[in-house]
Amino acid sequence: MKRTYQDIRRTNRFAVMRHLIASAPVVRRDIAAATGLSVATASDIVNELHELGLLAEIGQQASGGGRPRNLLAPALEGPRLIGVDIAETYVHVEVFDPALRVLARAEYELHPHTNSPDYVVDRIVRGIDDAIAQAQVERGRILGVGVSIPGQVRPDGTASVFASNWNWNDVPLLALLTDRLPDVPVILDNPLRASTIAELWFGAARGRDNVAVLTLGTGVGAGLVIQGALYRGATNTAGEWGHTNLVIDGRNCRRGCVGCVETYVGAPGIMQHLAETDPDSPLLHPDDQMATINALATAHAAGDPAAQQVIATTGRYLGIAIANLINLCNPQIIVLTGWVADSLGSAVLPHVRATAARYALAEPWEGTEISLCPIDRNPVSLGAATLVLEGFLS
Amino acid sequence: MKRTYQDIRRTNRFAVMRHLIASAPVVRRDIAAATGLSVATASDIVNELHELGLLAEIGQQASGGGRPRNLLAPALEGPRLIGVDIAETYVHVEVFDPALRVLARAEYELHPHTNSPDYVVDRIVRGIDDAIAQAQVERGRILGVGVSIPGQVRPDGTASVFASNWNWNDVPLLALLTDRLPDVPVILDNPLRASTIAELWFGAARGRDNVAVLTLGTGVGAGLVIQGALYRGATNTAGEWGHTNLVIDGRNCRRGCVGCVETYVGAPGIMQHLAETDPDSPLLHPDDQMATINALATAHAAGDPAAQQVIATTGRYLGIAIANLINLCNPQIIVLTGWVADSLGSAVLPHVRATAARYALAEPWEGTEISLCPIDRNPVSLGAATLVLEGFLS
Ligand SMILES: [Zn+2]
Ligand SMILES: [Zn+2]
Repeated sequence: MKRTYQDIRRTNRFAVMRHLIASAPVVRRDIAAATGLSVATASDIVNELHELGLLAEIGQQASGGGRPRNLLAPALEGPRLIGVDIAETYVHVEVFDPALRVLARAEYELHPHTNSPDYVVDRIVRGIDDAIAQAQVERGRILGVGVSIPGQVRPDGTASVFASNWNWNDVPLLALLTDRLPDVPVILDNPLRASTIAELWFGAARGRDNVAVLTLGTGVGAGLVIQGALYRGATNTAGEWGHTNLVIDGRNCRRGCVGCVETYVGAPGIMQHLAETDPDSPLLHPDDQMATINALATAHAAGDPAAQQVIATTGRYLGIAIANLINLCNPQIIVLTGWVADSLGSAVLPHVRATAARYALAEPWEGTEISLCPIDRNPVSLGAATLVLEGFLS
Repeated sequence: MKRTYQDIRRTNRFAVMRHLIASAPVVRRDIAAATGLSVATASDIVNELHELGLLAEIGQQASGGGRPRNLLAPALEGPRLIGVDIAETYVHVEVFDPALRVLARAEYELHPHTNSPDYVVDRIVRGIDDAIAQAQVERGRILGVGVSIPGQVRPDGTASVFASNWNWNDVPLLALLTDRLPDVPVILDNPLRASTIAELWFGAARGRDNVAVLTLGTGVGAGLVIQGALYRGATNTAGEWGHTNLVIDGRNCRRGCVGCVETYVGAPGIMQHLAETDPDSPLLHPDDQMATINALATAHAAGDPAAQQVIATTGRYLGIAIANLINLCNPQIIVLTGWVADSLGSAVLPHVRATAARYALAEPWEGTEISLCPIDRNPVSLGAATLVLEGFLS
């Protein structure tokens, strides 16, 4: 309950490291000015980051007669971070340097019926082996592995995955991974949180205190940032915005709820709008969500009336669900991310804004921005690796 | 964005003062044990509170051979706090000692058509004069006045009130009050926040980190506690849960939204359920919300079928709206307060629980308690005065 001095030190370290990544090369007094810290505190943190191997002095800046100032940057030759994005259909692994630049990638497909925990863990470990071999990284240089798994991760390291063909209930994923990756710290979380951390460090949420990052894909959910930090709730399940109710006695949800947001704006829900608009639509690929969503995007751009109606319907539901979030949480910015947002985001956004303006109260509505994820690479593996960096800085 | 050392000192002072109020007389090491602070830090704060006049040494405790320990308690003869609860129909003023015990009360009725800002301010000032005369308090001893006004309070001290017969838009209430109460600090907020602070210091939320306090009355709203502190959002409007949507294209709301929670579980919404169930119901007093709600409570207890149906309908809507809050915010406890909760709370609670269990996801549902406000006096004036104490301790 109490905010501790450690919290403050951690927050300050995060702020300095973020500024370093965003603006290097910088000198100590730039860091102090940008973060609002005193020059003394900023200097202390710079020294800590140097000792941790995350920061390098890369030259000097003349200072009109005074002592030249050291130019500081993330230590590109420093420790390596690994981010893993597990989805229903793939395992994607990336190796990063301390500036969170990608050094190497590896990807393995997963098939709907080959998703046992042992199989998935094996694909993760192979992906890491491949990627670190490409990047020529010795294991001892790896600061840690961040793994994002689409489901609920518990403090004891077990995970449940809520995907149609996965039967993962309370799988001891952390134990399985640390068995195969001895001596490497592993952090587990879900894509909602990974994407949110990526937005906070590198995306539309940088420098914002109160943020909601909405992931739109097969599943739908939110990452909430409160006072500049990820909000996890009493039992680490905060952010299940996708399962808040939109339609009483509405569509059935795979998670047991009824009429929730996900059943109207998740990929299967959008496909259902399409089937209800035109059961014989050539845009509908019943067994391929991504093909259907991309076909909708293309047809919408070409002026197809059925696609336009489906986009309008989806945008209206999403707008109401976003207005609810605005009224309750009064965020500065709402960011849409995930593969459905990548594909349909710019098409639905006008409908979302028009509906949210109608359903949100005037004051919080005027204080909120709605934007698409500006990060042009995989935000989930990036965020998962950033969780490792945050863990190390704590 | 950054948590500051001042935040921590404030939080620690709050914790010590809360423990002192709840458990006096106590010795320094009890305070340290109960708050998790070191004995040195607890002692520093005790000394600060002593200097501020809020704490008194009221005796000594022998300590088996060692130096006797000072027994500490709130300074009952210390400064006075004033809490004002403004509602559509009354102005209620209470004078408190530093233990937040009521020393005197005054109340003035407001009539629907006599609610100009000058008139209401005059009633507040008269109420304060009456109450401090009763309590025989000199003005110089007043630490401050906390005023709760049912509406939106802005950082500049202006207020808008959203009541049917009030036309308060951007009224400079803080300026009007400080004109009439020179030399006394005035803090303005709304009853959602005042009730939440009261629950946090004296009620069901004591010692909890993540809490939602739901006020049910003519209007409906939430106070959100995140990491032990009131969450205000980006523009100080967080908590408008009453205006999140329950029914798309549903009932019209006085605040301009459509189908929001308030239109189904606020007093006028409950009256509408009754009118839809039985337009000629003898329980319905069209011009008196409180009489109707109390008649419903009595009839429900007596087994009246129409009352039972209205309670079940209200409880179902409230249960869905609470499930949404549980899924999104994952609070440890949800507290129901306000006059509608006082009257109908125990009757609706079984319906609320049954519906919320159906609509909430299993994990956050299992981590949440739903309870009625346990404070047996006016929580709004109490909370308003506690806001003054918090302000002084900051
Ligand atoms: Zn659901
Ligand atoms: Zn409303």
